[in-house]
Amino acid sequence: MEQSELDLVQMTAGIREVDESARLEAVAHTSNLVMPPRAMGMLHDTGERLWAISGGPSSGFTERAVIVFAGDHGVVEEGVTAFPQVVTQEMIRCFLSGGAGINVMADRAGADVFVVDIGTAADQPKEDTESGRFFSRRVGRGTANLARGPAMSRDQAARSVLYGYEIATERIRSGVQLLGTGDMGIGNTTPSSAVGTVLTGYSIQEMVGRGTGIDDERLRIKREAVSASLERNNPDSRDGLDVLAKVGGFELGGIAGCILAAAGHGIPVVLDGLISTAGALIADRLAPASRGYMFAGHVSEEPGHTNMLRHLGLDPLLDLGMRLGEGTGAALAMNLLDAAAALGSEVMTFDQAGVSVE
Amino acid sequence: MEQSELDLVQMTAGIREVDESARLEAVAHTSNLVMPPRAMGMLHDTGERLWAISGGPSSGFTERAVIVFAGDHGVVEEGVTAFPQVVTQEMIRCFLSGGAGINVMADRAGADVFVVDIGTAADQPKEDTESGRFFSRRVGRGTANLARGPAMSRDQAARSVLYGYEIATERIRSGVQLLGTGDMGIGNTTPSSAVGTVLTGYSIQEMVGRGTGIDDERLRIKREAVSASLERNNPDSRDGLDVLAKVGGFELGGIAGCILAAAGHGIPVVLDGLISTAGALIADRLAPASRGYMFAGHVSEEPGHTNMLRHLGLDPLLDLGMRLGEGTGAALAMNLLDAAAALGSEVMTFDQAGVSVE
Repeated sequence: MEQSELDLVQMTAGIREVDESARLEAVAHTSNLVMPPRAMGMLHDTGERLWAISGGPSSGFTERAVIVFAGDHGVVEEGVTAFPQVVTQEMIRCFLSGGAGINVMADRAGADVFVVDIGTAADQPKEDTESGRFFSRRVGRGTANLARGPAMSRDQAARSVLYGYEIATERIRSGVQLLGTGDMGIGNTTPSSAVGTVLTGYSIQEMVGRGTGIDDERLRIKREAVSASLERNNPDSRDGLDVLAKVGGFELGGIAGCILAAAGHGIPVVLDGLISTAGALIADRLAPASRGYMFAGHVSEEPGHTNMLRHLGLDPLLDLGMRLGEGTGAALAMNLLDAAAALGSEVMTFDQAGVSVE
Repeated sequence: MEQSELDLVQMTAGIREVDESARLEAVAHTSNLVMPPRAMGMLHDTGERLWAISGGPSSGFTERAVIVFAGDHGVVEEGVTAFPQVVTQEMIRCFLSGGAGINVMADRAGADVFVVDIGTAADQPKEDTESGRFFSRRVGRGTANLARGPAMSRDQAARSVLYGYEIATERIRSGVQLLGTGDMGIGNTTPSSAVGTVLTGYSIQEMVGRGTGIDDERLRIKREAVSASLERNNPDSRDGLDVLAKVGGFELGGIAGCILAAAGHGIPVVLDGLISTAGALIADRLAPASRGYMFAGHVSEEPGHTNMLRHLGLDPLLDLGMRLGEGTGAALAMNLLDAAAALGSEVMTFDQAGVSVE
């Protein structure tokens, strides 16, 4: 076993289940709030899960961050996507200039945006150390074409997870209380759909959609690429690292690591769409206890996303027909998580309010 | 015609349609944003409707308010609800103490909460002039029992709308850029369902639900009360004021007035649940152009709410299984409206970002 994998095993061993008894206390508290029983619906469930993470009432989250992991994908040579690969790098620059969708959504959510080049294919850019918002942690210059062989080595897979874990851990140590995951990578709905097919048991038909908006012919090619990747590589669904290595992508590993860092340090993490949730499936397979720290920010237009969330037992907070990625769905949901926390810590009980009970 | 109705006719005459050409400009702008076509789904539609209201790009809404209209209902003597009527007054005190669901949700939305007693049945409380957050504008001491006769006079109906209009107008003149509607009133899902049945054409079965959580027997009684109110009063569905007077409630009138004030002054208004949307149906009937200024904050658990929103052509931003009222669903959605506005005014175009187009 390589050192990277040993480090990963040690890291995941430190992840504890959320506190179910604290969640039950929260449920009892909800029933005393000055409102009809469970009148805030899913916001109660969300707030109660937050109690289970913090071990008691939470006043909410003032320090928030979205970490966007960017990588490239050898499978683009199959013609699975509508945009050229150079766009991955161009979008990184856009993120750093503050003009992308995620910048604006994160700004409105009071969250800082951090960008990690975890394996893009373009010439290496100089790390933007001045802003502290960009990290170059390349595991490779894009993955290999998963339709023809493994996307990456097992060591690369482990390192992508560890990089995500380290960068997210730094953020948590700097005071971040709520993390969101984001992605950028032309072609990355293909590996995400492949990972989803292996780890959820849904069919390729149920898992592969139109990504950024491809036509029928490209959709056929994409489904064939996923099918070929599974036949050729035969990933072991019991082994998250094997699945990531054979049919995944570097940013999926980074996202998995980010989620494991949240779980390892006992804070909630909000997932974005299909790619983030594919990363969550990897995290879940590496450390099943991490599932208790995950929240689904939204459900995207991609049909596979609904199925992934169902597999993880997560109900999405938003359903706005979005399919951008970048972490936008995670950022948009952050204020809702904060409101859910406040519901349990700031709303009066019937007794406190002096209101007559039924 | 009474003076109140003349005032109302004059007020609604000032409401203009939103600017459809500005909306089309916004749609064209969306197609240039640095993201795949319409990748933010319903957030684009929302942002484009906001352009139509402001006549151009909006940078968002920093000044926000939720106005909660409270009233009582004679129909409670039929046994349609699980809570005693005194709770309406107790909840007003709770709103003013800051400990209710709406206070916490509005706080997280950066919105101020204003409470209007537009016709509760309890002894008149002293107006809390110090905080400026409470207004006593009673049209009556609760409505009459709509299952046995008209809920109120035509003059009372007109005055409830005018009070709502005046109070909301004061807020807008004080700088509020985004309004939310809220309600409090034990028994008020019954008049709301009656108004919904008359104005949407859906059946009583499709419109009447369990409110704060009543059992099968109370649900039967409630449906009978709505049925009796329609048979006995025979409201004229072409005349919003007639519907409000015969089967409505004072807070429904206040909410309608609040919506008309937003429309009259050209700002957006976010609806909460069943009761707010019943008020919106009245506003829509009094001034159809007001529909362009309405946004559905959420869809509640009440089955009638879905049907009301369908009738108004409004897609809800949130669907969290909530059924509290108070304006909580409106408050929760305010950050989403703000994000929708920012999408159109702050996200770069492909050209600005230097990103390759397909």
